[in-house]
Amino acid sequence: MRPSGRKIDEMRPISIEVGVTKHAEGACMIRIGDTHVLCTASLEERVPPFLRNSGQGWVTAEYGMLPRATNTRMRREAAAGKQGGRTVEIQRLIGRSLRAGVDRQALGERQITVDCDVIQADGGTRCAAITGGWVALRLAVNKLMKAGDITTDPLTDPVAAVSCGVYAGQTVLDLDYAEDSEAGVDGNYVMTGSGRLIEVQMSAEGSTFSRDEMYRLMDLADKGVAELVAAQKAATA
Amino acid sequence: MRPSGRKIDEMRPISIEVGVTKHAEGACMIRIGDTHVLCTASLEERVPPFLRNSGQGWVTAEYGMLPRATNTRMRREAAAGKQGGRTVEIQRLIGRSLRAGVDRQALGERQITVDCDVIQADGGTRCAAITGGWVALRLAVNKLMKAGDITTDPLTDPVAAVSCGVYAGQTVLDLDYAEDSEAGVDGNYVMTGSGRLIEVQMSAEGSTFSRDEMYRLMDLADKGVAELVAAQKAATA
Amino acid sequence: MRPSGRKIDEMRPISIEVGVTKHAEGACMIRIGDTHVLCTASLEERVPPFLRNSGQGWVTAEYGMLPRATNTRMRREAAAGKQGGRTVEIQRLIGRSLRAGVDRQALGERQITVDCDVIQADGGTRCAAITGGWVALRLAVNKLMKAGDITTDPLTDPVAAVSCGVYAGQTVLDLDYAEDSEAGVDGNYVMTGSGRLIEVQMSAEGSTFSRDEMYRLMDLADKGVAELVAAQKAATA
Amino acid sequence: MRPSGRKIDEMRPISIEVGVTKHAEGACMIRIGDTHVLCTASLEERVPPFLRNSGQGWVTAEYGMLPRATNTRMRREAAAGKQGGRTVEIQRLIGRSLRAGVDRQALGERQITVDCDVIQADGGTRCAAITGGWVALRLAVNKLMKAGDITTDPLTDPVAAVSCGVYAGQTVLDLDYAEDSEAGVDGNYVMTGSGRLIEVQMSAEGSTFSRDEMYRLMDLADKGVAELVAAQKAATA
Amino acid sequence: MRPSGRKIDEMRPISIEVGVTKHAEGACMIRIGDTHVLCTASLEERVPPFLRNSGQGWVTAEYGMLPRATNTRMRREAAAGKQGGRTVEIQRLIGRSLRAGVDRQALGERQITVDCDVIQADGGTRCAAITGGWVALRLAVNKLMKAGDITTDPLTDPVAAVSCGVYAGQTVLDLDYAEDSEAGVDGNYVMTGSGRLIEVQMSAEGSTFSRDEMYRLMDLADKGVAELVAAQKAATA
Amino acid sequence: MRPSGRKIDEMRPISIEVGVTKHAEGACMIRIGDTHVLCTASLEERVPPFLRNSGQGWVTAEYGMLPRATNTRMRREAAAGKQGGRTVEIQRLIGRSLRAGVDRQALGERQITVDCDVIQADGGTRCAAITGGWVALRLAVNKLMKAGDITTDPLTDPVAAVSCGVYAGQTVLDLDYAEDSEAGVDGNYVMTGSGRLIEVQMSAEGSTFSRDEMYRLMDLADKGVAELVAAQKAATA
Repeated sequence: MRPSGRKIDEMRPISIEVGVTKHAEGACMIRIGDTHVLCTASLEERVPPFLRNSGQGWVTAEYGMLPRATNTRMRREAAAGKQGGRTVEIQRLIGRSLRAGVDRQALGERQITVDCDVIQADGGTRCAAITGGWVALRLAVNKLMKAGDITTDPLTDPVAAVSCGVYAGQTVLDLDYAEDSEAGVDGNYVMTGSGRLIEVQMSAEGSTFSRDEMYRLMDLADKGVAELVAAQKAATA
Repeated sequence: MRPSGRKIDEMRPISIEVGVTKHAEGACMIRIGDTHVLCTASLEERVPPFLRNSGQGWVTAEYGMLPRATNTRMRREAAAGKQGGRTVEIQRLIGRSLRAGVDRQALGERQITVDCDVIQADGGTRCAAITGGWVALRLAVNKLMKAGDITTDPLTDPVAAVSCGVYAGQTVLDLDYAEDSEAGVDGNYVMTGSGRLIEVQMSAEGSTFSRDEMYRLMDLADKGVAELVAAQKAATA
Repeated sequence: MRPSGRKIDEMRPISIEVGVTKHAEGACMIRIGDTHVLCTASLEERVPPFLRNSGQGWVTAEYGMLPRATNTRMRREAAAGKQGGRTVEIQRLIGRSLRAGVDRQALGERQITVDCDVIQADGGTRCAAITGGWVALRLAVNKLMKAGDITTDPLTDPVAAVSCGVYAGQTVLDLDYAEDSEAGVDGNYVMTGSGRLIEVQMSAEGSTFSRDEMYRLMDLADKGVAELVAAQKAATA
Repeated sequence: MRPSGRKIDEMRPISIEVGVTKHAEGACMIRIGDTHVLCTASLEERVPPFLRNSGQGWVTAEYGMLPRATNTRMRREAAAGKQGGRTVEIQRLIGRSLRAGVDRQALGERQITVDCDVIQADGGTRCAAITGGWVALRLAVNKLMKAGDITTDPLTDPVAAVSCGVYAGQTVLDLDYAEDSEAGVDGNYVMTGSGRLIEVQMSAEGSTFSRDEMYRLMDLADKGVAELVAAQKAATA
Repeated sequence: MRPSGRKIDEMRPISIEVGVTKHAEGACMIRIGDTHVLCTASLEERVPPFLRNSGQGWVTAEYGMLPRATNTRMRREAAAGKQGGRTVEIQRLIGRSLRAGVDRQALGERQITVDCDVIQADGGTRCAAITGGWVALRLAVNKLMKAGDITTDPLTDPVAAVSCGVYAGQTVLDLDYAEDSEAGVDGNYVMTGSGRLIEVQMSAEGSTFSRDEMYRLMDLADKGVAELVAAQKAATA
Repeated sequence: MRPSGRKIDEMRPISIEVGVTKHAEGACMIRIGDTHVLCTASLEERVPPFLRNSGQGWVTAEYGMLPRATNTRMRREAAAGKQGGRTVEIQRLIGRSLRAGVDRQALGERQITVDCDVIQADGGTRCAAITGGWVALRLAVNKLMKAGDITTDPLTDPVAAVSCGVYAGQTVLDLDYAEDSEAGVDGNYVMTGSGRLIEVQMSAEGSTFSRDEMYRLMDLADKGVAELVAAQKAATA
């Protein structure tokens, strides 16, 4: 029995709201149950030094959490004077994941920075960030295409992510915080709209898992990502 | 003529939405026109070292801006490795302002940290943060009182703030970004619900002003703060 | 009764000594009673990036305090690895204040950095820094004019500052440390030689004030600044 | 054809040399081909704050690379003033991986810090660090058991890791740098001596992969880890 | 011929002015020619952790330079966010040097921090800092003895320092900046009032020196330190 | 009697092993008894800004210690976020020392960075680093000369260093850790192969020394450096 009463292969309610900020080239607020992440895509007509004069673009990501997005207040990273290891790990993952769905030649020599800021956290923030981040990216690219700055669509396939894990002895889809903090094994699965894998991160804190468990988690992930991609498409139609 | 078409003594629309996050002891999203600030109040049953065993509480504030709250993306302070001078100045101001309306003896030996994070900026973010921060504080204190942890209300008077300035030769109320970036003189006025002054900061960038102009700006501020305090009361009724 | 025995509208003794260092383009040691600040102006033939090829110059300021300028030793900011919030706030104020008295077009594309280092502190260091900083700036500009590098005087009016506050229920001029640490309300007033206002910062720590009190403090400030400007003129004649 | 001429399921030569430093409680130099990592285990009779009086111990890890461990010199992280994102990610992985093989109750309230410093890099440094780190940990724990400080062996199963990837269209075992820098897909597999999984990290830079490819990589990993565990046992026998 | 016209064994004018600040337990402004260093000694009734309950005291030093103490403005270390290597080296030298003349048992369990801040630099600042720092220390200790907090004088012998070097082929005493910037070989000699050595640091930038040159430089240093110790005694008599 | 049983003028066993890493242009592992330092020389075809277009090259050094090179684990400097004062002091010394033996005109406009990383420490690490660093530099320069990039040998004379000190009342050569931690006086002597001095640093912690002791220590240093230079020549022959 899951704390939320969900079935083992049931996602939390998914909501992707666009038009949430007037400044960014693309933006959405993604809500996966009580996890709310504001994603913005910012376009700059310059690339990192290693890509200058390459004709290729770049997509990168940054991740943050408001101090009271969590149950007890966390120290503000700007005040602490550095981003924690978890933050750095997550934002590198988001950037790699989004780039896997981008034809950087078609994007042309420009950079899009996707900022994912967690407004409220209840587990699965990195997966929500990837899923919402892709929506912000999609909207920013749409703008470029509408303006005629890009002629070939550089987004080859939607990118979305979900977490699964072993909770109370059962493999379950889309862990919320109550489950995540108890799960001995959990994983994050980043996939494309056509079901190809981009990143798989499975981890056992103080525990181990079998290959069979792993395969069952991946089946759940397939189901979850399909629902997320449907929501992405609906939001950006 | 103001860019927004407002009258010289007209505030932007004021909206204070409560119940916006499930974790914080008190919280609101304040919207002053296109300036949106999420304010949360976090309670901790400990005080800074200089107040231990004093029987007195503490109220402090932190301020941040999402990287794309502004028209062009700003560098994330956590990534830069430090809070900028402007951020530090503003959060010190918010903390001092809120404390002016608190009976720290009545609060008892506990600390409330008010986080003000700008989701979207269009001028006047520090004033919105003070006004919304007080609402978050009010809600957190209500919770303490309802639980019987505090018997005397430590909030002596509402605290709110507004900016006024000289734009295109005229003294105007509640500067938006278009006005603020052009104004030679501007000021921030922090006041109580009963019209007493807490903090006055008037500044002329590359310009000067007369005492008479100052007095006229303060008259405008009186009007603006009265409207803000009414909105605070409505939101926390 | 003031701790120093001064009348409520009486400044501490003002001394501005020039010729105190052989390297700087302009320099003075300003002493307002026991508050001693060494001010130097350093000329550089370059401007910040945002002013390149604009034909305009820049004036900026930095502020510091020797570790034992105060009654008990404070931690050295260079050792702590960052400037405190108070330091940042003060040096931004000094820079803004001085720029209000500068015609940056007449200065031409060069930068003058005014360093204000507190050798001994007894209240009012930021005001002394502004007043002495202007003298250092004046001397550096004189040098440029004598050398023919500038033909129109870019200093439009002297800039000076004084603090006033409410001490023991009375509005008093030029707070020393004994008064400042007790005052519920205090303010810093930056003005020009012709009596125009540049910056007004009034603040109540754990208290509030009326508009009437504010006006009386400003009358005191008028008197104090007039005396400071006379001393500036005498020192740079 | 692999650049090294190895078969697709062939590990590089494995060497684990113990007794390489006189100070550490446990230490080894692990060499996987041209990747050389010095691993030391340091025992401290204290635990992090969150474990005080819990009766449980802690195992943590730090990772570093000498500036010229690589083909071109990298900036020294101590000089840069912070550990890079990659370093942080890797040392968190090493710590989690080693803890999965530790009974922290049996270890008792003490901490073992495993330092993994790359002396020479040629791909797969994080996997070598985990494999060698476990040997250092094993030796330090042996010392504690010989001294009678611990009675039940807290190391439940060896922990080792290997990387596999898709190089030139083929799934290959134990990527060296020449392969790693070209591989579109690679993964790190942390496993126990009995073949259970601890951590799986698969990543596609600018590419995607199928579930079938994933399973074939895991078959290779099984073979590689078995060889590494045999070498660990031989070195600590 | 020296740039200043001095004889090869001639010191610059030495001036040690006491009573220069009202807060510090001991203080002086030392002037060696155009090198001016403000030295303060601050007493604290606590010691570093490694000396707690040892009955022994500690003397430590910090060194700084005002940004415009030099011919061209240097970046403020507090703004740069760290002390440079040269600063760290010098303050460690000052601390070690002063401690060599202190009976830490007689001082008792208290700490004296000697701050040496260069107001104007013209070569030899570290030597001036040691010499003036000892005077500040002497005055602070006198205060402790007068108050009866210490009964045995913990200062066993005066400590002073001078630089010598090879300039234009000649061994010269007390290098000023014009000489120092040209000298291929220079040294700093820290000695006691009775002529014993505490620290010798000889260095050749892009050059070498013979033992014979070294001995001649030490003869010069003997002469210089004797004059400095006489000035210290006069200032503290 | 020395703890190691050595005679007072006896060096520890000296070993210089080359060919220890495949990436660096020059490298050696130097072992002076139980002090082991890995030295690498990295060539870059660029120079620091102050040497651009000067036709002259640069040699610089960095120094580090693995966390468990010492008897108890030290905090990793990269994790602490800065290099300690001791580290900075030592790497500046190594750089100056090596440059004294380099004709920078003959080297041409390129930079060689010598990294000295202490793998195991037992006293005298900075001297071992200088001695081994010169070997790495020699090998890197040999490579440049063999390739015809340099025609005149820029290394004018070998550079080596040894420490001597007063231990248990006796002047002894090549202090190991057991002696160093007890010695009241110790010194580091950097010399050339032909016996000229480059750097002399003598220091008394809480003690003093006579000129006569100094001379006797220098006689010991002459002997030690001669043996080190012989080992350098053998290793690079």
